[in-house]
Amino acid sequence: MPSYPASARIREVGPRDGFQNEPEVIATADKVRLIEMLIAAGLKRIEVTSFVRADVIPQLERPGDVSLSVLIPNERGLENALRHRSRFDEVSVFLSASETHNRKNVNRSIADSLRGLERVLATAREEGLRCEGVIATSFGCPYEGEVPSERVLAIAERLVAAGCSEIGFGDTTGMANPLQVDGFFARMRERLGGAAGPELTAHFHNTRGQGIANAVAALGQGIDSFESSFGELGGCPVPAGSTGNIATEDLVSLLREMGVETGVDLDQLLAATREVQSVLGRPLGSHLLTAGPVDWGGAAG
Amino acid sequence: MPSYPASARIREVGPRDGFQNEPEVIATADKVRLIEMLIAAGLKRIEVTSFVRADVIPQLERPGDVSLSVLIPNERGLENALRHRSRFDEVSVFLSASETHNRKNVNRSIADSLRGLERVLATAREEGLRCEGVIATSFGCPYEGEVPSERVLAIAERLVAAGCSEIGFGDTTGMANPLQVDGFFARMRERLGGAAGPELTAHFHNTRGQGIANAVAALGQGIDSFESSFGELGGCPVPAGSTGNIATEDLVSLLREMGVETGVDLDQLLAATREVQSVLGRPLGSHLLTAGPVDWGGAAG
Repeated sequence: MPSYPASARIREVGPRDGFQNEPEVIATADKVRLIEMLIAAGLKRIEVTSFVRADVIPQLERPGDVSLSVLIPNERGLENALRHRSRFDEVSVFLSASETHNRKNVNRSIADSLRGLERVLATAREEGLRCEGVIATSFGCPYEGEVPSERVLAIAERLVAAGCSEIGFGDTTGMANPLQVDGFFARMRERLGGAAGPELTAHFHNTRGQGIANAVAALGQGIDSFESSFGELGGCPVPAGSTGNIATEDLVSLLREMGVETGVDLDQLLAATREVQSVLGRPLGSHLLTAGPVDWGGAAG
Repeated sequence: MPSYPASARIREVGPRDGFQNEPEVIATADKVRLIEMLIAAGLKRIEVTSFVRADVIPQLERPGDVSLSVLIPNERGLENALRHRSRFDEVSVFLSASETHNRKNVNRSIADSLRGLERVLATAREEGLRCEGVIATSFGCPYEGEVPSERVLAIAERLVAAGCSEIGFGDTTGMANPLQVDGFFARMRERLGGAAGPELTAHFHNTRGQGIANAVAALGQGIDSFESSFGELGGCPVPAGSTGNIATEDLVSLLREMGVETGVDLDQLLAATREVQSVLGRPLGSHLLTAGPVDWGGAAG
């Protein structure tokens, strides 16, 4: 029988990944209020914005144990972000493990991306920023099909050597399955794990309804760091119309039911999800938003 | 690392569980066409109707390896069904493992339900019908909270003694989690398993987005029989508005990706789901219907 970690960390990516995929720009005041609600709910890691296009970092009061991150595509993005150095604690850099996906996404080869990110990471480390390297299409690519885990591993090793203390493995278009995830993380832990190794983070999408099952498989391999998005916002809309990131509240509910501590107050998180649903003015994909938390007290009676 | 069975059986319950929960009655011609599409897709077990209210059994041509079942609540239901004995192969009987849920559902105590079902099963066996006993709220009850697995086991043993060759364990309002499912099915296999034991079938709901994860957990415990509903139709709408059964196409996609043989052609199944969506005239909850099967050939390029 699989055994599961006693606790897990969750990075909320909705304010970045969710909002940037919305057709309308979210007003800064709304964004600040929503992020404050997420902090109040107990989320300790929040990706607040990206510098893929020119962007701003909302100014937020935050407790000392909350870490805000920004997504950085290249050196110019980091330069822009550093104008507000005091507003964030971490950077996330990203590339794809698939040549084709990387070219379509950032118009560079993997080799060129790595060279650019090595410079970004060197500067970020000098600025005292914690660095996460996100590897998109780690479990499969819609253009290339299979992505060899050896290639993912080689990219991860380069990112770690360049200063990443955390590697995020993204199932960008929801191609992963639990059997694959079992083997993938067993291998990553064997090759990258240990006390000196980077934190290994799983980023699953619910494109085919299997995102939570993949999270459980990763958890069964000892992975205790996840990325997700409140309201099931954002994620790669490939194929068109499909759902993206797993919903943070669905993940928190699952972990709570499995006795895995997250530090997140599910009711307060659901308040934030209701609020973002109201701001966006459309029904969101989150299951918990409709069903509510599991009630073992039998309150339905 | 968990190991998984090489193949699995799926009973499609949409034509019964899905259609009976629709506000509009589905025309018999539509129902027949949809069931024929499900048979063409390779589904070998289909629950076609229920005799909870007076019902009819659609007349269907079916290959010899396809088994049609009807849901039977009581002796009168079986009597009505037997007027069309040639139209079906199996019966499913049901009760809840929770006293409160059973009373709310069928207005009887568990003990009274069991006595009634024993008479139903005796008659069904005399008629040469294969019998499944479904135990609702096996993993938790919205009115009573925890449901002791010892009670579920005792009910299962009574149903087996009365002639059931298959026991279905229903997570009626989506309260189960993978850790619980691991332990539950390990125990059920230990106590009911073996060559002479009944087939053990898992029936999960996706109420909190965790249904597929629970199916994987059951699979990891050697469970290779599932019930699901095309288009994510039906299931218990408690809490109000929540999704019910896991979608057959999401389950088939997952099993296919994990190398678990189901005999179901996913493209033909999706054709049936598109058809039922068109008949019902509203968007359905199935993920695969939007995302399509995983394409390892990289066709998106």
